[in-house]
Amino acid sequence: MTQQDPRSGRLIKAPENFIDSEGVRTVFREGKAGRRDFVRGAFAAALSGGAVSAVHAQANPVPAAGGDANILNLPAHTTGLGQPVATDGYGKPSRFETNVQRRPSPGLTQTAQASVSFAPLQSLFGIVTPSGLHFERHHQGWWDVDPSKHRLMLNGGDEKMMKRPLVLTVDEIMRLPSVSRFHVIECGANTGMEWGNVAVPTCQYTHGMISCSEFTGVPLKILLDMAGVDYKRGRYVLAEGADGSSMTRTIPMEMVESGEVLVAYGQNGEMLRPENGYPLRLVVPGVQGVSWVKYLRRIEVGDKPYAAKDEAIHYIDLMPSGLHRQYSNTQEVKSVITTPSGGQVLLDKGYYQISGLAWSGRGKIKRVDVSVDGGRNWKTARLQDPVMSKCLSRFSLDWAWDGKPTIMQSRAMDDTGHVQPNYKQLRAVRGSRSIYHNNAIQSWLVQESGEVKNVQLS
Amino acid sequence: MTQQDPRSGRLIKAPENFIDSEGVRTVFREGKAGRRDFVRGAFAAALSGGAVSAVHAQANPVPAAGGDANILNLPAHTTGLGQPVATDGYGKPSRFETNVQRRPSPGLTQTAQASVSFAPLQSLFGIVTPSGLHFERHHQGWWDVDPSKHRLMLNGGDEKMMKRPLVLTVDEIMRLPSVSRFHVIECGANTGMEWGNVAVPTCQYTHGMISCSEFTGVPLKILLDMAGVDYKRGRYVLAEGADGSSMTRTIPMEMVESGEVLVAYGQNGEMLRPENGYPLRLVVPGVQGVSWVKYLRRIEVGDKPYAAKDEAIHYIDLMPSGLHRQYSNTQEVKSVITTPSGGQVLLDKGYYQISGLAWSGRGKIKRVDVSVDGGRNWKTARLQDPVMSKCLSRFSLDWAWDGKPTIMQSRAMDDTGHVQPNYKQLRAVRGSRSIYHNNAIQSWLVQESGEVKNVQLS
Repeated sequence: MTQQDPRSGRLIKAPENFIDSEGVRTVFREGKAGRRDFVRGAFAAALSGGAVSAVHAQANPVPAAGGDANILNLPAHTTGLGQPVATDGYGKPSRFETNVQRRPSPGLTQTAQASVSFAPLQSLFGIVTPSGLHFERHHQGWWDVDPSKHRLMLNGGDEKMMKRPLVLTVDEIMRLPSVSRFHVIECGANTGMEWGNVAVPTCQYTHGMISCSEFTGVPLKILLDMAGVDYKRGRYVLAEGADGSSMTRTIPMEMVESGEVLVAYGQNGEMLRPENGYPLRLVVPGVQGVSWVKYLRRIEVGDKPYAAKDEAIHYIDLMPSGLHRQYSNTQEVKSVITTPSGGQVLLDKGYYQISGLAWSGRGKIKRVDVSVDGGRNWKTARLQDPVMSKCLSRFSLDWAWDGKPTIMQSRAMDDTGHVQPNYKQLRAVRGSRSIYHNNAIQSWLVQESGEVKNVQLS
Repeated sequence: MTQQDPRSGRLIKAPENFIDSEGVRTVFREGKAGRRDFVRGAFAAALSGGAVSAVHAQANPVPAAGGDANILNLPAHTTGLGQPVATDGYGKPSRFETNVQRRPSPGLTQTAQASVSFAPLQSLFGIVTPSGLHFERHHQGWWDVDPSKHRLMLNGGDEKMMKRPLVLTVDEIMRLPSVSRFHVIECGANTGMEWGNVAVPTCQYTHGMISCSEFTGVPLKILLDMAGVDYKRGRYVLAEGADGSSMTRTIPMEMVESGEVLVAYGQNGEMLRPENGYPLRLVVPGVQGVSWVKYLRRIEVGDKPYAAKDEAIHYIDLMPSGLHRQYSNTQEVKSVITTPSGGQVLLDKGYYQISGLAWSGRGKIKRVDVSVDGGRNWKTARLQDPVMSKCLSRFSLDWAWDGKPTIMQSRAMDDTGHVQPNYKQLRAVRGSRSIYHNNAIQSWLVQESGEVKNVQLS
């Protein structure tokens, strides 16, 4: 679209949806001179994103965008009555954000009931994952369990292990002393495809089996104290879920004794979502997600690990020796750049804020370094407060892209001194036949076209 | 319902939905003796919440709950395939939680477009408010504004005040350096009805015009720096919204210079919700909600307060002298017990965890004291980490109810030394003809029946 420049008289291309500094000054000069209609018209064009820029509105006072009964071309929301309060007692995201979804990876698993959906990390800010976008991993599908009929049983391997076995209702549990804590949950299989260098395209699929929430619940230690557990003998806990998979996992008692393990009912201020184990799930900070048993129905106390089906066959690591590593509970220090990341496109050169997430199952993130040259040089990124233990931390770094291809990486360190390894270091210890527990440094290739691609440096 | 006791042979009242310790032991003794069906049946009764308790299942092996094809009376979710992953790309709360809603107060305002919906504080945990339950206050209804057409204009009162006036797209703003911070937003009119001692029934209606989120956005200072503001002369900012109410509020420049004021696009990890100003809203930590302008379309820099319509007529405080106090921006230190609270019922004597929320527009909460005897004696409550500035803090205190009537109160102190006043202290300074800025101590009367009622101590 061309318009006549009011000063030079020449035909020029109208800037789309933008008023430059000179245009704004013109608007205000004219406005102060009493030309109120002009000001309002110019504003209308600017704010409605119409193709008429401020400097051209004067030369061509009839709005270019057609079909609007409003002579000033004001958008409807500046002139009319909007929606009433409580249109929906429980609100939803904007219709312009429907593309931000958790997504399954078609073909990854045989059935959609024993599968995964990934959180859209590339679209998220800060550290809290909206509960509607929390990743899913089900072993037998999810249920919306009636909380009035749900029970949690606590029992011991024998009568001496637990003096007063208990069955508790959800109401009884919610009446007990509770705490609220921000924690990250990561599936042990997160980034699993990268063991085989599959290089799935986006960070939603490479790292999206992770989410972070404020969990509320009762420390399991309080329940075991009520039940009269003999902590000298009872060194392990078995947690069992109520869905069809009867998920069962062993938790070392020292984790329970630390007070960190919670029987949770709350997540991000409200009750757990059905996909995340409503009405009760175990929260085991720092440990892979499979141990955060959903639809929690039973806690048994015993004197040795249970080698349950879900820990004898699955969630084990095939080492180079040919032996499997079992009970590898702790999620080691890890990070990923989420902006820019695979599948995104840098539209032009210049300033970008590199931003990403870091976490460790051992404690707090102490430092994150970022490289924009494939690991040759590293700069320390900013860490956003608050930095919490066994929780996501957001890091960022200023960067100006010169338009040349480059590889971006992030490397996290935690407050116990553990450092995130690169693939060479990880494979030297773990080999290449694992599925679980990949915490290697992620590489994103920024191509000259601006397209960002998942690559693995050997 | 009565059943025969398998040991004594006497008819006894079957405990509803509960297995006692002896019952659990019986289940396991029988289980270890190889009576597997019995164990499974007993579990089924316990877990399905059927009226058959474990000790009675033996005497009466036919499940009491009728109509279930499953001979063991197992609930469907323990036997069948559940819902697949990503049933909904954006999840929803449980069908059993539909009562947890934000709610308007019928008759409070003349139209539902210029009204309020209140957050259900009595049902929330921790400090994060789920975005779907964030309180609403609209002056002309809410809109789902198209972000691709939305603009933010920055201009100065004259050409010297701002060297480079700007109009920015949402994409341009999202590319700039951003921060994420947890902050509370409280409507200046929160607890307003209590000035007239109306004693609305629940804490949703007394204190529910408050919510807390992790906000993400660009410090406004960065945008003003880009625009070349003369901070010596430009001591005030006018923020203007794009909805029909053209909400306009003055913000003192020192707040902007502190870096705290954000042009936010993110809330709890995702884009702002439409009701909360999508795609851009101003975040002004510590200041009443009306200044957190939604659908933010313009920032003007000037050398004096603007006395805009929304600050000259509304959100002012009628003092005992008959004069109005204007520009009372800061939300003073305040707290409320959310459990137990008005409208709730204590079903029996014994242990309860008193829990509530505290906040201050001046900084961090330092201490919260709780009284369970109408203010005669006070105990210091636990504060849940993390305690953040200008953010909700969750406090709790253990309490055993003796069944007698009592009055509960909480009193917050912040790290600047400000202490929440009681009504006598507040009215001594402010009189009784205000609508806004009531931060008095809230009293809940626990009646002998267990019912909790809103009362105001003179």
